[in-house]
Amino acid sequence: MIVVMQTGATKEQVRQVEEVLIQLGFKTHPIYGEIKTVIGAIGDKRLLNPQLITDMPGVEGIVPIMKPYKLASKELKQTKTTIQIDDLTIGGREIVIMAGPCAVENEQIFYETARKVKAAGAKILRGGAYKPRTSPYSFQGLEEEGLKMLALARRETGLKIVTEVVDTRDVEKVAEYADILQIGARNMQNFRLLKEAGASGKPILLKRGLAATIEEWLMAAEYIMSSGNPHIILCERGIRTFETATRNTIDISAIPVVQELSHLPVIVDPSHATGSWKYVDALSKAAVAAGADGLLIEVHDDPARALCDGPQSLRPDKFAFLVEELKAVAAAVHRSL
Amino acid sequence: MIVVMQTGATKEQVRQVEEVLIQLGFKTHPIYGEIKTVIGAIGDKRLLNPQLITDMPGVEGIVPIMKPYKLASKELKQTKTTIQIDDLTIGGREIVIMAGPCAVENEQIFYETARKVKAAGAKILRGGAYKPRTSPYSFQGLEEEGLKMLALARRETGLKIVTEVVDTRDVEKVAEYADILQIGARNMQNFRLLKEAGASGKPILLKRGLAATIEEWLMAAEYIMSSGNPHIILCERGIRTFETATRNTIDISAIPVVQELSHLPVIVDPSHATGSWKYVDALSKAAVAAGADGLLIEVHDDPARALCDGPQSLRPDKFAFLVEELKAVAAAVHRSL
Amino acid sequence: MIVVMQTGATKEQVRQVEEVLIQLGFKTHPIYGEIKTVIGAIGDKRLLNPQLITDMPGVEGIVPIMKPYKLASKELKQTKTTIQIDDLTIGGREIVIMAGPCAVENEQIFYETARKVKAAGAKILRGGAYKPRTSPYSFQGLEEEGLKMLALARRETGLKIVTEVVDTRDVEKVAEYADILQIGARNMQNFRLLKEAGASGKPILLKRGLAATIEEWLMAAEYIMSSGNPHIILCERGIRTFETATRNTIDISAIPVVQELSHLPVIVDPSHATGSWKYVDALSKAAVAAGADGLLIEVHDDPARALCDGPQSLRPDKFAFLVEELKAVAAAVHRSL
Amino acid sequence: MIVVMQTGATKEQVRQVEEVLIQLGFKTHPIYGEIKTVIGAIGDKRLLNPQLITDMPGVEGIVPIMKPYKLASKELKQTKTTIQIDDLTIGGREIVIMAGPCAVENEQIFYETARKVKAAGAKILRGGAYKPRTSPYSFQGLEEEGLKMLALARRETGLKIVTEVVDTRDVEKVAEYADILQIGARNMQNFRLLKEAGASGKPILLKRGLAATIEEWLMAAEYIMSSGNPHIILCERGIRTFETATRNTIDISAIPVVQELSHLPVIVDPSHATGSWKYVDALSKAAVAAGADGLLIEVHDDPARALCDGPQSLRPDKFAFLVEELKAVAAAVHRSL
Repeated sequence: MIVVMQTGATKEQVRQVEEVLIQLGFKTHPIYGEIKTVIGAIGDKRLLNPQLITDMPGVEGIVPIMKPYKLASKELKQTKTTIQIDDLTIGGREIVIMAGPCAVENEQIFYETARKVKAAGAKILRGGAYKPRTSPYSFQGLEEEGLKMLALARRETGLKIVTEVVDTRDVEKVAEYADILQIGARNMQNFRLLKEAGASGKPILLKRGLAATIEEWLMAAEYIMSSGNPHIILCERGIRTFETATRNTIDISAIPVVQELSHLPVIVDPSHATGSWKYVDALSKAAVAAGADGLLIEVHDDPARALCDGPQSLRPDKFAFLVEELKAVAAAVHRSL
Repeated sequence: MIVVMQTGATKEQVRQVEEVLIQLGFKTHPIYGEIKTVIGAIGDKRLLNPQLITDMPGVEGIVPIMKPYKLASKELKQTKTTIQIDDLTIGGREIVIMAGPCAVENEQIFYETARKVKAAGAKILRGGAYKPRTSPYSFQGLEEEGLKMLALARRETGLKIVTEVVDTRDVEKVAEYADILQIGARNMQNFRLLKEAGASGKPILLKRGLAATIEEWLMAAEYIMSSGNPHIILCERGIRTFETATRNTIDISAIPVVQELSHLPVIVDPSHATGSWKYVDALSKAAVAAGADGLLIEVHDDPARALCDGPQSLRPDKFAFLVEELKAVAAAVHRSL
Repeated sequence: MIVVMQTGATKEQVRQVEEVLIQLGFKTHPIYGEIKTVIGAIGDKRLLNPQLITDMPGVEGIVPIMKPYKLASKELKQTKTTIQIDDLTIGGREIVIMAGPCAVENEQIFYETARKVKAAGAKILRGGAYKPRTSPYSFQGLEEEGLKMLALARRETGLKIVTEVVDTRDVEKVAEYADILQIGARNMQNFRLLKEAGASGKPILLKRGLAATIEEWLMAAEYIMSSGNPHIILCERGIRTFETATRNTIDISAIPVVQELSHLPVIVDPSHATGSWKYVDALSKAAVAAGADGLLIEVHDDPARALCDGPQSLRPDKFAFLVEELKAVAAAVHRSL
Repeated sequence: MIVVMQTGATKEQVRQVEEVLIQLGFKTHPIYGEIKTVIGAIGDKRLLNPQLITDMPGVEGIVPIMKPYKLASKELKQTKTTIQIDDLTIGGREIVIMAGPCAVENEQIFYETARKVKAAGAKILRGGAYKPRTSPYSFQGLEEEGLKMLALARRETGLKIVTEVVDTRDVEKVAEYADILQIGARNMQNFRLLKEAGASGKPILLKRGLAATIEEWLMAAEYIMSSGNPHIILCERGIRTFETATRNTIDISAIPVVQELSHLPVIVDPSHATGSWKYVDALSKAAVAAGADGLLIEVHDDPARALCDGPQSLRPDKFAFLVEELKAVAAAVHRSL
């Protein structure tokens, strides 16, 4: 790291800072500029409480040089990570479509939707059995009954299953049924849940938090990886900004940025990002064009009657048409779908 | 709620919308403007999936009229809620100071700090035994050992104890030791944790999420209240904005806004809001002047050696001086401290 | 508009509000709900100072129904607006590429760049003669000398010219030389400049402000249109959010949202949106896939020596390669390029 | 500045970067860490286009060390700047209240308001003659006629006058009448206007932009100062965030942050910050308690009939009561009012 001294800091103050840094096991390299002096400090910043230094007379601040994440970083692993589920690969040349209703509500409607998204080209079926809802008065999910519907739908369609886990106490049970565990945006920094889900060994779909920087998102991935589970799929689903025309603002730049910083695959959820099915078509194409490894799209056979997030669900016919269109976009960026 | 029809919507389309609304148990009141028609709909919006209407031909959108929270709202309860812990009242005329280190780390330093904040005028001792840390490589807290130190400090100083709970599995244990359970900003929408903490019956200190609107914050309180626990203290601790000069941007307006919308007491955490002890003095005074019911201030006997958030901790002497200053500010706004 | 009465408002209070509204020329339609009463008010909200009503006893607030912009709205004009400059059409089936350096700096380099972007397929040449720079110590542009270089480059290449105007006093002169006047993000709400530029009759490239909502952006267009100039090209160039990995966060959803609300063409500036040439490729493809009518891309023959915004400029060879790639993406969404 | 090399950068790449830096007149100091190498570069960063370096093989990025502003910085001038207008001092021990209507609309109401704010303790009268309005259909100000009313009010009350200038062409005229020129939030980065207003030699009230960082705000001040005018009053008026309960979110931390970074006085506008007179009381007290040098408060004798921003105006009696309350808060923080 770099310690920046205040303008007018004395040589003695610089000496004292070096002394403390050396005590803490750092090698120091002061650089005397015309106006400011900085001290390069080589060593493990994690050993250090910054205030030890920032509180010293003459110190202006500290500039970290190393990124806080390691396992998730391209610095450690250059080759792209791919997640393998039986014969399905996530993070490869093929773009993977995950689709289904927000919540598993009704056995018949759910199978109908599953059958149709499969026919349209989806490889993974999404559906929530445990729902984190902003209002305590909203439908909270069918819980284990919902998991069983998911498993049945998998058996009948051959689709893989991704579903959200919201409580450390449910991880074991959800992992019994699901192929991929989803960590929702609101739980991106629920660190206990990250560790517990990671410990299950199942691939994790890690949604970006509403107010999470890309660095914090990768730090959340680091939590899971540090518990020994490298199978992580990052999912951009929109961040919170001042704009109210869409529920959230999708950060499409996050795709190339993540691909530059990390080896983990990254997908996009255009449905939650905008909150309106009207924009899913444009954003799905944008995500694929920008290099996303997959899409997570809400599809509901009867959105108007959906107990959850109906307004952002596509009808199966619209979804099937979109997938056809996406094939051309994927080809244009040298991917398949 | 109000259904807004598109410009040029036909009388027939209006009729069809009314028909559906009536089927759903609403009473309808169409208003024909020169350019637009709107339909007032009286009934329980929670019965309705908005897309049932928004997807109908001629419909532009829906405007809700009722607030989504009820128990937390002043509409239901006009009188200010006060939380009583033995002889201590939170939400009354007296401003309550909660102080202590970010994390309980070292028995001796912790008691020393506890003794000093008590002497300075704090009524409640804060200290984390379970820490949600952005990095998996950071100190994660002493867990039950930390809770025991908290309980001992309470016995020796008579201070009440507030400490954070981060996992539904820990609620019972933390509730055994603490007087107040803290829900951290990152868990404000960890709905299972809200319900579990609420079920403990203990007063809950509910921190505002980094990206939470005041309405969502009150909805989180609604979760706890709907589980039968009305003892909630709201805590503003800064929101995330584009400004990087401070770690977060404290939303001081949240104090008068919450007091207008809700009957719950609201306090401020100036330490986490700014991330720097240098600004705690100014923000503590601002919070009291704006009408906060209390402050949550990080104090550490040796911040430079703190394993957690040192840079935002005040030294006990600075804290004692601040409390003296705050007495004058409190008096200026007709409060005591 | 809708006046929402407080819970518990009396019939007399409702009557008084109606009385005032009627005096102001509104027709009123009270709707009595179980908990709340609302009053539909038909008339011209622009005649009304809202506080006349919001200050009355029993009133909670006002909900506007009409959009604040008219000329820019699809409600007034359904057909897409196209801007015609000689044989060039903006807003049609063909996606128009505008390219060139941030600033016009050096005659030779500028012509070189112009020649190359033309060869690569750009139709419009961009280059700043008047630069709004965050620092007073940065290069401020060659002013009229720069305009002359632009005009010369147009004569030699046949490219159309777009350049920024930053001062009402310069509008006349810039309009002499340019085919399109650019209003920069920082001036989006410099209303005097909007009017003056609009009055020139030249097509206006209106960049979205860093903190401007889509509604405010359309209101800025309304300023220009209300001065009698309908030739407006909207340009999304990124908004300010908490994310620091990119200079700004491009709001790709703004494309479909604008296309839903307005008839004006919308283009994207991926260079300023991210501040890094590394991300221009992915974002350009995303913008085209999402339905943008054009792109504004920074290209510089020697970015490393550019006096302005070098880091976000593409080299001509990279740009030429990108345009080739974009042709496939355009075709995939049924557009040409 | 510090050049950070990529992990795995070769010694040869480091050498090449040093070579370029030396050519550009920098002194270089490479520091070889275990994982990363950084190069300290001493010299004038303003000479350098960063991409010259960031585009070189092996380079990860650049970390600037010096602040971009100089004249506005405490590094150059430690003593607090005070603005003197006849016998009135802004930036001293006494907190200065500026009050009046948003816009000068009606001679009689305006004088009435002026008389009353003077009686209540205001030292400076505010009132807009040129109004930047979001809608072209809103009242745009009385222009010179309004300036004349301001001058008359000054003569009759002895209050100083602050009014906004929105166009470089109006600076000379406005400066004839006003004691302080206001640069509005929307024009904070209208650099031509900053220079022109600065050149008038009049004190400048510089409002913070909706999306301006504190650093950008100080850079805007730098523009004015670099044109030879050191008489600047910074005015915090709220920034744009995701929160919609208030029109903007006041950044109260900006007060201590500015006081740490700069020698310029800083005041707060609680009326525009919240958009509601209901919150002006709490925010005014918070601003004074946090150390603001003054307040800019909207007061209107008949807010309900105000043509501009009525909802955020206080009535004179409420204002007079607030000033009395503020005297106690000012005293509590060792200031007078």
